[in-house]
Amino acid sequence: MNIGVLGAGQLGRMLALAGYPLGNRFTFLDTTGNPSAGIGEVIVDPNNQHLDEFLAKVDLVTYEFEHLPVELVREIEAQKPVYPGSRAIAVCQNRVEEKALFDRLGIPTPAYRVVESAEQLEAAARELGCPVVAKSVTEGYDGKGQAVLKQPEQALESWNSIGHSQLIVEAFVDFVREVSIIAVRGRDGQVVFYPMAENVHVDGILRYSLAPMPDLDAAVQQTADGYIRALLDELDYVGVLALELFQTREGDLLANEMAPRVHNSGHWTMDGAVTSQFENHLRAIQGLPLGETTALAPTCMVNVIGREGDITALLALPQAHLHRYDKSERPGRKLGHVNLVAATHDELLASVKSCAELLPGSPAPTFSFE
Amino acid sequence: MNIGVLGAGQLGRMLALAGYPLGNRFTFLDTTGNPSAGIGEVIVDPNNQHLDEFLAKVDLVTYEFEHLPVELVREIEAQKPVYPGSRAIAVCQNRVEEKALFDRLGIPTPAYRVVESAEQLEAAARELGCPVVAKSVTEGYDGKGQAVLKQPEQALESWNSIGHSQLIVEAFVDFVREVSIIAVRGRDGQVVFYPMAENVHVDGILRYSLAPMPDLDAAVQQTADGYIRALLDELDYVGVLALELFQTREGDLLANEMAPRVHNSGHWTMDGAVTSQFENHLRAIQGLPLGETTALAPTCMVNVIGREGDITALLALPQAHLHRYDKSERPGRKLGHVNLVAATHDELLASVKSCAELLPGSPAPTFSFE
Repeated sequence: MNIGVLGAGQLGRMLALAGYPLGNRFTFLDTTGNPSAGIGEVIVDPNNQHLDEFLAKVDLVTYEFEHLPVELVREIEAQKPVYPGSRAIAVCQNRVEEKALFDRLGIPTPAYRVVESAEQLEAAARELGCPVVAKSVTEGYDGKGQAVLKQPEQALESWNSIGHSQLIVEAFVDFVREVSIIAVRGRDGQVVFYPMAENVHVDGILRYSLAPMPDLDAAVQQTADGYIRALLDELDYVGVLALELFQTREGDLLANEMAPRVHNSGHWTMDGAVTSQFENHLRAIQGLPLGETTALAPTCMVNVIGREGDITALLALPQAHLHRYDKSERPGRKLGHVNLVAATHDELLASVKSCAELLPGSPAPTFSFE
Repeated sequence: MNIGVLGAGQLGRMLALAGYPLGNRFTFLDTTGNPSAGIGEVIVDPNNQHLDEFLAKVDLVTYEFEHLPVELVREIEAQKPVYPGSRAIAVCQNRVEEKALFDRLGIPTPAYRVVESAEQLEAAARELGCPVVAKSVTEGYDGKGQAVLKQPEQALESWNSIGHSQLIVEAFVDFVREVSIIAVRGRDGQVVFYPMAENVHVDGILRYSLAPMPDLDAAVQQTADGYIRALLDELDYVGVLALELFQTREGDLLANEMAPRVHNSGHWTMDGAVTSQFENHLRAIQGLPLGETTALAPTCMVNVIGREGDITALLALPQAHLHRYDKSERPGRKLGHVNLVAATHDELLASVKSCAELLPGSPAPTFSFE
């Protein structure tokens, strides 16, 4: 089975590393001109001239990046199976459609408004009560295309800095922590759920994901399972879906956004769960039985961002699993991650602090349960 | 760091899969004309014309197959670091030198004789007492170049069937089980040991490796650790070394043979230990800190030989990790392996039996502790 991947970054790389042992081969289609997968066959196609060549090589298509032209994905779907399907892409790349779907399925979200001018943005900020966050409706990724308004008077400045014709404006949530749930749906409709992770962002970029959470109420996990199952079933989804949520002081969950692909907050599963999210995505899209999602031990994923840090010292940490992406250093760039595993959460937190000290510019996290 | 691998089979493939996350790249030199690694850059060189091209690309050299001309390895050593070094190869590819080393280091072995004619073979068989096993001194691999003599009168027939000018003749050992110990030595002399595995062979080919053994006395593991440490230190060895042993009814260990490389009886570590043998080999040869070798849970490696079996059913087994080598089916060919993990040894044995039923021509094993 030759699997075609749209995009050729680290997510595609890790899919391939999980897929070779299943007997898969991989062909990547890179439209950026700057692929980094470093594995499999990479077709570099910045001018969209090699799609037919790509499709002729592959048995089915998946992707590592959802900000793809929906028309392109539909064109591919007419020729080869694409998992997850174009409907998931259409929803996930448009915050208005995504919110509408959450609303329709009864999945709570922060209060929001859709605005189409600086004036509407100012009015929404007054109505929701500042601070609010304004986000472009499309092409959001890792905190880009976003602005925080501390006062309604910042509306014009924010509108201009984002530079999109339609924005979502959201009330700030008084959350205790940011969490995510990752689930996998097979071609036969079977669904499996990973234990939820607590995520720590710095400057809008994910830095840490820890799972399982020591203080997670089983009822909260069940609620999250129910939300993501509703999304998976509604979209007739096949593969890994990630849903990011806020958990409030009262323990309630509010959906933030979803991603129709393997997700950075699921990288801990590579060393902390029976089956990694990457293997389960590949099992799902090939119609194979899904693997178990049980956590093996408390695990924390630490992103390596901008600079590599001291590799030798990182590898000397207890139960440290290093995953480098073979990319050159650049401020803000995800270069790799370290998965730390430990017998107890106390040991894990100590290990995370040691790891943070070895990574330049990586402030040690404070988790909600500490 | 670009790592050169002599040989391009499944061991090289699995080294590469473990090495990409460390940021390594791989170039394989295949002299068979039939590489199967399916990953990295493969230089196919059946006529030995591309060694310089290979060496120009790589920072250091390792190998997946020890039956290499020692002169070739010495030639490479003059240009690039080679781990493990040529001395390990020279010893491991010659059963007489290997036995002499075991003797010198006080590592017990089955009684043996070196013979250079059918007449000497017959005399040795009488002296040691039949049955005996006769093995060619060089180029032994997976039961090839061996013969069992049930009576001394079979000497001429055996001599002719093996067709080598020098044989080792060994007394049969009344063993309870075949076991192996895998250890890793770093460039700084640090040594780590994996828990011993019990191995089940069928027709001279490894079929099952189970670790940790539920009934293993800590003193026996310590004895094995001592034997392999003596070998590692004596050879100033860097990388993974495997030592196969017989365990007698009295609990004693007798060394059978060693392999200066990652080993089939260590594949269980990919899913059953904190750090796999492949990652630890790469850490060792690059001078990086060695990873922990602790077992995570009872694990059994099941080789997939000759035919692939029902992939879907295999993946549905509990905690099953499939590792396919992307090779075409052929009788006796190692096509992949399944690592089964379980919470208890009873659950593991049940899972192994289910797995054996799914693999054509794979008789279910009986382990010594059952």
